[in-house]
Amino acid sequence: MATVKLWTDEEAAAVPEIKAVFDDIRATRQSDFVNNFWRALANQPRLLERTWASVKQVMIEPGTLDPLIKELVYIAISTANSCSYCIHSHTAAARAKGLSEAQYAEFLAVVSTAATTNALANALQIPIDPEFLAG
Amino acid sequence: MATVKLWTDEEAAAVPEIKAVFDDIRATRQSDFVNNFWRALANQPRLLERTWASVKQVMIEPGTLDPLIKELVYIAISTANSCSYCIHSHTAAARAKGLSEAQYAEFLAVVSTAATTNALANALQIPIDPEFLAG
Amino acid sequence: MATVKLWTDEEAAAVPEIKAVFDDIRATRQSDFVNNFWRALANQPRLLERTWASVKQVMIEPGTLDPLIKELVYIAISTANSCSYCIHSHTAAARAKGLSEAQYAEFLAVVSTAATTNALANALQIPIDPEFLAG
Amino acid sequence: MATVKLWTDEEAAAVPEIKAVFDDIRATRQSDFVNNFWRALANQPRLLERTWASVKQVMIEPGTLDPLIKELVYIAISTANSCSYCIHSHTAAARAKGLSEAQYAEFLAVVSTAATTNALANALQIPIDPEFLAG
Amino acid sequence: MATVKLWTDEEAAAVPEIKAVFDDIRATRQSDFVNNFWRALANQPRLLERTWASVKQVMIEPGTLDPLIKELVYIAISTANSCSYCIHSHTAAARAKGLSEAQYAEFLAVVSTAATTNALANALQIPIDPEFLAG
Amino acid sequence: MATVKLWTDEEAAAVPEIKAVFDDIRATRQSDFVNNFWRALANQPRLLERTWASVKQVMIEPGTLDPLIKELVYIAISTANSCSYCIHSHTAAARAKGLSEAQYAEFLAVVSTAATTNALANALQIPIDPEFLAG
Repeated sequence: MATVKLWTDEEAAAVPEIKAVFDDIRATRQSDFVNNFWRALANQPRLLERTWASVKQVMIEPGTLDPLIKELVYIAISTANSCSYCIHSHTAAARAKGLSEAQYAEFLAVVSTAATTNALANALQIPIDPEFLAG
Repeated sequence: MATVKLWTDEEAAAVPEIKAVFDDIRATRQSDFVNNFWRALANQPRLLERTWASVKQVMIEPGTLDPLIKELVYIAISTANSCSYCIHSHTAAARAKGLSEAQYAEFLAVVSTAATTNALANALQIPIDPEFLAG
Repeated sequence: MATVKLWTDEEAAAVPEIKAVFDDIRATRQSDFVNNFWRALANQPRLLERTWASVKQVMIEPGTLDPLIKELVYIAISTANSCSYCIHSHTAAARAKGLSEAQYAEFLAVVSTAATTNALANALQIPIDPEFLAG
Repeated sequence: MATVKLWTDEEAAAVPEIKAVFDDIRATRQSDFVNNFWRALANQPRLLERTWASVKQVMIEPGTLDPLIKELVYIAISTANSCSYCIHSHTAAARAKGLSEAQYAEFLAVVSTAATTNALANALQIPIDPEFLAG
Repeated sequence: MATVKLWTDEEAAAVPEIKAVFDDIRATRQSDFVNNFWRALANQPRLLERTWASVKQVMIEPGTLDPLIKELVYIAISTANSCSYCIHSHTAAARAKGLSEAQYAEFLAVVSTAATTNALANALQIPIDPEFLAG
Repeated sequence: MATVKLWTDEEAAAVPEIKAVFDDIRATRQSDFVNNFWRALANQPRLLERTWASVKQVMIEPGTLDPLIKELVYIAISTANSCSYCIHSHTAAARAKGLSEAQYAEFLAVVSTAATTNALANALQIPIDPEFLAG
């Protein structure tokens, strides 16, 4: 029920810049599966290219944070923003990267604790301690 | 500029259940510093006790997620909820737990990538792929 | 699956103040279609009247912003608030008012850029430049 | 009170990749003013480069939406996300691009109307009309 | 540091439609105090009139919900939306209407419990029980 | 379509700490119905126990706020957080506790008024009046 059409593989194959991104998604992930997010963005080829380039660089290229940790941070943001699609797709991604049930339980506990204390700190308009501002 | 008064150490010392929480915060963190969040919650002793018990159990007790990772998840939620106090206090906590500049840069990149794709997925109302729902 | 019943045309016709609003919606939009939003609000006639009066005045009466632009601002707010119904109904409205695919692509790019920089500015708690506060 | 230091011109001048971005900001905007957002991002040069590249492409390069309209969409997202820095900086930008008081008044009316109907549609969990889903 | 100027009493007195709203605020509240929210909206007289008319009708006119309860609902929304001004002004209003410390403590407990379970239900994408949908 | 499995009564009966919570939910509510929220949390028994303990203490134990009022505050937060599950379950709970149509209409009016003025106060970045900060 997207607000745009979702591109099929046949349609994508007919437009070189879309095909190039779909090919790179498949090669990078070593999987034939291209999920709906990219099929929807295909309507805006420049946005598709730029968004995939960012996601690839940030979420997939090796760095100092473990890929699984990046997924948890991603799900946390998506939960607070109530993005149903993002929660589903990245919880699946986290599981594919080895998320254990115990880690997921702890993650959920942190998410719910943060939500609680966010609400309290916002409701109480607590002033920031000078210690947190010090250089 | 809180909506409630912030309790001083002297005031807290005069109320046993508040003193008990402040003492446990100090003992648990091995620091004399009690930040404003707890000084504001002291107006509601039961809420103070319950909130501290949760934070202590979730954020401090050892588990399967590294304490630094928990702080990053916490900051992610606080950023999406625009909780200024929480962002300041937990970024300071993450640094105290060893967050490097490279890790912080990567964390910020994940946070901003998630925010971008959340906005796109919400705007486009992308339907969830059956693959993400399976099992 | 609303939390309230949706009023049919027959039911609405039997209550003068609801009928009056439905009639005005049809006359103003020059269409027989009354969407579910108004059928749900019909349970609260005063809220129905006031909400329609606001929407009509703000979104439909001529002013200094083009009606299509107003729809884009509306969708932007609805996206950040994760209001699925509002995104669907106003993306349809924007298209009915002539939104081109190129404009929609640019709109989505602005929305996603704003979401990114919002997340960064909130995470980094950037102080407001005095230049932005001047006069 | 940022969570990171803000880079001065002198510090930025000593790091080529940061200097390059600051120089491009100045050249693109034809102004010597580099606002705090970029001075904070300078701590993460890759993120600085990527974010500026996106903002430049999306907000400044000519397209099918007027630059002033893009600013309004940007402020709408920032308002819903409660990003104080972003609201201040882009309201200033909109004024620099010619926003009139009458346009600003209408913009605020649309923003507040959208916020209202978002809240109602979310509270009532209104089902999406099939008409909005059709092709 | 508003994005618009705040109107003084002298300035407001010189514009009849602004003066009329300020006068009605004072008469309705039986107080000479006109808070900054209205002084900022005075730049957009029609929005000022419409917003005051809504606030007066909804928050002040007698109905089936106690005025204090309305303030609590208002603060809850403002907390989740991270609206600092609104939290401050309506917490003050709730106190003026008799909010006790015990009630405020319970209110904060409900707010924080809702925030917690919202985060969990969103993270877990829990399907709605048919029992909640039944007529 | 949850991201976790929903526990059946048979599965719950086989794990003592889960069974204990389900039994207490049934005894406390004097109903055999255990809704999906708890069936999803059953995957994380400690989180299940802690969350139920909080909900029971905050929402069900007698205090100074009427149980119906607590439900309204809860729905307000859930609406602003766009938590579909929470809105459905607690609107049903509010009705079970006697919410009248007139009260619901007024509640919706307050929610939408708060959303409107939140958006305006955030967009205008209105400075907090000193009167609201006093003592």
